[in-house]
Amino acid sequence: MFSERVSRLRSSLVRDILALTQQPGMISFAGGLPAPETLRLPDWSDVPASALQYGPTEGEPELREAIAEQARALGIACDASQVLVLSGSQQGIDLVAKLFIDPGTPVLTESPTYLAALQAFELFGAKCHGLPLSPARAGRASDGFASAASDGVDPDALFTLAAETGARLAYLIPTFQNPSGTCYSASRRAEIARAVRDSGLVLFEDDPYRELVYADVDRTPICAHLDGGSWIYQSSFSKSFMPGIRLGFLIASPDLIGHLVRLKQAADLHTNRVGQVLALSRLRSAHLGEHLASLRETYGAKRTAMHDALTRHFSDLAEWTAPPGGLFFWLRMREHPDTGERLDMRELLPTMLERGVAFMPGEVFFPSGSGEVGYARLNFSHATAEQLEEGLATLAEVVRDRM
Amino acid sequence: MFSERVSRLRSSLVRDILALTQQPGMISFAGGLPAPETLRLPDWSDVPASALQYGPTEGEPELREAIAEQARALGIACDASQVLVLSGSQQGIDLVAKLFIDPGTPVLTESPTYLAALQAFELFGAKCHGLPLSPARAGRASDGFASAASDGVDPDALFTLAAETGARLAYLIPTFQNPSGTCYSASRRAEIARAVRDSGLVLFEDDPYRELVYADVDRTPICAHLDGGSWIYQSSFSKSFMPGIRLGFLIASPDLIGHLVRLKQAADLHTNRVGQVLALSRLRSAHLGEHLASLRETYGAKRTAMHDALTRHFSDLAEWTAPPGGLFFWLRMREHPDTGERLDMRELLPTMLERGVAFMPGEVFFPSGSGEVGYARLNFSHATAEQLEEGLATLAEVVRDRM
Repeated sequence: MFSERVSRLRSSLVRDILALTQQPGMISFAGGLPAPETLRLPDWSDVPASALQYGPTEGEPELREAIAEQARALGIACDASQVLVLSGSQQGIDLVAKLFIDPGTPVLTESPTYLAALQAFELFGAKCHGLPLSPARAGRASDGFASAASDGVDPDALFTLAAETGARLAYLIPTFQNPSGTCYSASRRAEIARAVRDSGLVLFEDDPYRELVYADVDRTPICAHLDGGSWIYQSSFSKSFMPGIRLGFLIASPDLIGHLVRLKQAADLHTNRVGQVLALSRLRSAHLGEHLASLRETYGAKRTAMHDALTRHFSDLAEWTAPPGGLFFWLRMREHPDTGERLDMRELLPTMLERGVAFMPGEVFFPSGSGEVGYARLNFSHATAEQLEEGLATLAEVVRDRM
Repeated sequence: MFSERVSRLRSSLVRDILALTQQPGMISFAGGLPAPETLRLPDWSDVPASALQYGPTEGEPELREAIAEQARALGIACDASQVLVLSGSQQGIDLVAKLFIDPGTPVLTESPTYLAALQAFELFGAKCHGLPLSPARAGRASDGFASAASDGVDPDALFTLAAETGARLAYLIPTFQNPSGTCYSASRRAEIARAVRDSGLVLFEDDPYRELVYADVDRTPICAHLDGGSWIYQSSFSKSFMPGIRLGFLIASPDLIGHLVRLKQAADLHTNRVGQVLALSRLRSAHLGEHLASLRETYGAKRTAMHDALTRHFSDLAEWTAPPGGLFFWLRMREHPDTGERLDMRELLPTMLERGVAFMPGEVFFPSGSGEVGYARLNFSHATAEQLEEGLATLAEVVRDRM
């Protein structure tokens, strides 16, 4: 009775975890939820009655102008006609999947990568080919923490895998990658842009975390290094403004934007205009810089607290580096001293949930069939300091018990 | 480079029309836009800061309860677990298409039917089989106007076409059908429910206009006549509350709802919560009945005004009946006295737009390949009384000129 694609709907493990995190008393390291204390009610008087009417599919003209202006300041050559306002950036993934993916279409991704992108690509039948995040040079980062574990995917590997698989689409999250926290270096960004150009790939760059930065790192979009070609850059208002309003945007090369607008129209006509009006007010606000600085301070302190708690509880159990931005620590569990094997963190989940602590087993962030085990993604933005200590102590205890 | 489905993205004729209607001074009979004077700013103080956080994919629990309660009052056997809050009801069409449609999948629809449903179904590769709206018995309707031109699709034809095509999905708009304004009679609703059951069809009932009623007609959802089977009922807050907030919902049989929730998660995570909070306040408001009565009065007067203007300008050019509800008149153009042919209304569009009047050629509401010509859909909710008179006089002049 159902379409063929429904057989590829992934299991609801993650949904189940996130649903459980809504229970009172649950300590959650699972989602990427902003800290409740950073969510402040907007000035509703900015919203005119005219915003209650249907609006254009592309989004509010003034908001599109403001988004294009901001993107040009990042180095992306674009104008407002290339901007499509989204009902959250998850929708951008759905639209891009519709534009490019038939059953069997190869797609290149980082490995690990954003779980819900894998789900959407695979729903449309993509064969996702993962590129490992390659090791970075050793050293100290600007924030005093050990430097990042990775400098993103290898450009030669990207070029080769594109040629081998015939892939036309590459999905990358170069800035504070989800789940790994990786931030590609300036030189790596330029190299990836060259590899994209040389291989004729369409780059789909996802950049939701860029404002949540805690170290002095290069954040120039790879799309800003491209000179022509086909590309989509997308970002979100969910991480630094308000997720509940569901607002994101994409900017695409002129050959793609018309198709994406029509796909958006078929998907939900247009994005809610109340959120668009509020986002425009925010972009124009004299207090935006102040608010972002305050967010970085709040989250930077939470990051340090998690790093310290991890050091207390996980030094002998896992390896990690403090992420230079974003919302997550990425733990690589140590090998068992006798068997040399690493724990499949999915197996710990039922016990942890029973004990009132939710986290994301890292295994689910790898493309299907990768066989990778022994990772965990821990969000540091949502839990309080007390929850952080208690939750990590519990997780360490359960891991130790299993090892 | 693109997916196969992109070749099925329909032309942007309608988008172009709707974009032009945003121009100042344009008289628009094209969209289904609520009258601006009916859009009142909500009480924003209903929105708590907690609504700015991410929320559940299914929607706010209290809103789902309220929607289920309302549906039960209409006779639909359901509980809140079967409710999925949507980013507007266009999204329900996208999700249902994803659930059921592969390239070549047969789908039954009314002919004519909602244009954007055809677009979404055909985008996923559906072969849409149109069922003509059959003539109704003659007589007078409760509002004094001539009775409806149609009593919906013929149940035997539905059964036969399902058997012939192997279709599993039927999309119907029984109440103030878009574009025709048809409202199925009570007996016809029961007959269709039997035909759906006997043929094993999944009924997808779209019901966005039900609150905009101007005559004493039966509006019981066909889903309320079903006893088991698989079904989806959907409606919208856009027509009687505020479209700009993008809010709708679907209710589905227990075998379908889980899949639809997961498809929604992959599409946009969840619907914006500000709109959900406002919709819940509205459903609970002591003034809801009053507001709906006022809407019906406003639109009822506009309906009468258009009927009178049509009588002045179109009596010798077209046939129509005043719709018992909804937002549209549906005109069937008369045959040319010499050739016996009827005007393809698409050909008039450029001239009309040049002259500052937008309307929807009826041809685009028929499934691809039907070959039907000589219809127009005219919205009566948006134009002012002066615009109505001027716009219809212009349209009649252009039609007369061509004939």
